[in-house]
Amino acid sequence: MSLALNQWTTRRWSVAEAVDGCVRHGLEAVGLWREKVAEQGLAQSVKLVREAGLRVSSLCRGGFLTAGGLPGEDGRRAFAQALESNRRAIDEAAELSAACLVMVVGGLPGAQPGEPLPAAGFSRDLAGARERVAEALAELAPYAGERGVKLALEPLHPIYCPDRAVLSTLGQALDLSLAHPEEQVGVVVDTFHVWWDPRLFEDVARAGRRIASYQVCDYLHPLPADVLLGRGMMGDGVIDFTPITRAVRAAGYTGDVEVEIFNAEIWAADPDEVVATMKTRYEELVLATG
Amino acid sequence: MSLALNQWTTRRWSVAEAVDGCVRHGLEAVGLWREKVAEQGLAQSVKLVREAGLRVSSLCRGGFLTAGGLPGEDGRRAFAQALESNRRAIDEAAELSAACLVMVVGGLPGAQPGEPLPAAGFSRDLAGARERVAEALAELAPYAGERGVKLALEPLHPIYCPDRAVLSTLGQALDLSLAHPEEQVGVVVDTFHVWWDPRLFEDVARAGRRIASYQVCDYLHPLPADVLLGRGMMGDGVIDFTPITRAVRAAGYTGDVEVEIFNAEIWAADPDEVVATMKTRYEELVLATG
Repeated sequence: MSLALNQWTTRRWSVAEAVDGCVRHGLEAVGLWREKVAEQGLAQSVKLVREAGLRVSSLCRGGFLTAGGLPGEDGRRAFAQALESNRRAIDEAAELSAACLVMVVGGLPGAQPGEPLPAAGFSRDLAGARERVAEALAELAPYAGERGVKLALEPLHPIYCPDRAVLSTLGQALDLSLAHPEEQVGVVVDTFHVWWDPRLFEDVARAGRRIASYQVCDYLHPLPADVLLGRGMMGDGVIDFTPITRAVRAAGYTGDVEVEIFNAEIWAADPDEVVATMKTRYEELVLATG
Repeated sequence: MSLALNQWTTRRWSVAEAVDGCVRHGLEAVGLWREKVAEQGLAQSVKLVREAGLRVSSLCRGGFLTAGGLPGEDGRRAFAQALESNRRAIDEAAELSAACLVMVVGGLPGAQPGEPLPAAGFSRDLAGARERVAEALAELAPYAGERGVKLALEPLHPIYCPDRAVLSTLGQALDLSLAHPEEQVGVVVDTFHVWWDPRLFEDVARAGRRIASYQVCDYLHPLPADVLLGRGMMGDGVIDFTPITRAVRAAGYTGDVEVEIFNAEIWAADPDEVVATMKTRYEELVLATG
């Protein structure tokens, strides 16, 4: 396992700055975000990571596949748009030779991430939303496979079920992945999202080589008012990383370990200091599996 | 199934006022809280519910069994105190002929409900905390059985795992209950806590007659800054009650359906209006199972 910087941890850094930062701090891999890649330019981003000799541990993110659950023409149009957007994300992941494209599958149909529920054009059909995800994957997995891209289904903490991901547990993501070849669809184990799950260790073992990405950060308590920003540096929250890392390793995962932190204080700090702290905490708390 | 008022929904009401309110609104059962019973007096509370002809659908709450996970003498003392407090709760439930004693099992050892993590005297050992709950249940279940009280294990939404309940899914609660006779230990299905769970319907069916209490309220989105108060009146949030009620009924549950809402606006409103709204929404959204 090797430590990687997910560029959202040092959010103010461009792709060029994140690549420089990784090299400066001796990291071998970087997780990129589509918005940042678009700002840098895709071709330039590819050139930067190749010349720096970095692996792209993930591209974040595809997904948001559930709006097709809205009735009628609105639903059909939203589903087609989601598929098209995801095909572009797959193309970009292929260009970047990213180890996977992280998929945040979307919440209840019509709910917008981080926004209050809309008064109309919203569906409470959670089971239906989950079916839409399976349908979209059936379209996207072969497309990804043809381009050598692995889709990595990310279960999100149930607090994000209304608006960001109706995939709420590792077991659920794993079950969904099994309909597709291992090289096309895998799962993400992100400690923030899964630390509480009583079936975690059983499902990590069951996932085995389906684990496409291992992401680490801590779960803060209490959460801040904007729950999206409840991710903390390892050691600042409630998670015991040791047994989780041990389980992921025992399942056969040998890829990069991304640190992905959404946190207003960390975003305000000097990115070089953040990366230095990240390296220290990773050695002390994530790698130290006894 | 019959609608019941959990008295925390009309928090400003004493036991006497809640009993009067239930009678006035034609409800047959009330869920009581230990604090309120203590204020009214246990004997007087028993007298009030009996004379009104009400069932006590639950007593809230026992639990907080995990502090025994702290090291050394602190842990031993905390464990003994938790057992003693729960024996008193069981005694009260027996006096009130409550259908069950709701158990909120407690969070990580040393974490206090709703408080920031303490700097010291805190444990991240989640698996160990879950073992302490099983150990405490082994002590308490026979004591409850001798007094005709059923302990109802309540899985709480994973957002409460750090500080309130290391029981996070219905399946986990059910598995824990199976070590004990059905009349001693059951589970709570509370829509707020379990609506997101991809295994919900499978586990409700598996629970069958272990379901000791069905509680309903909605899940608000976004949650308020104090996540404890994210419960809403049915219809105000993201939950589709129809399939859940149908599943609970199909599992064989024939008990009372408590509405339990922690919500600052609802607590500030006229309790009689809250109960009237509760009745209407219950008929429209919870009972209407198609």
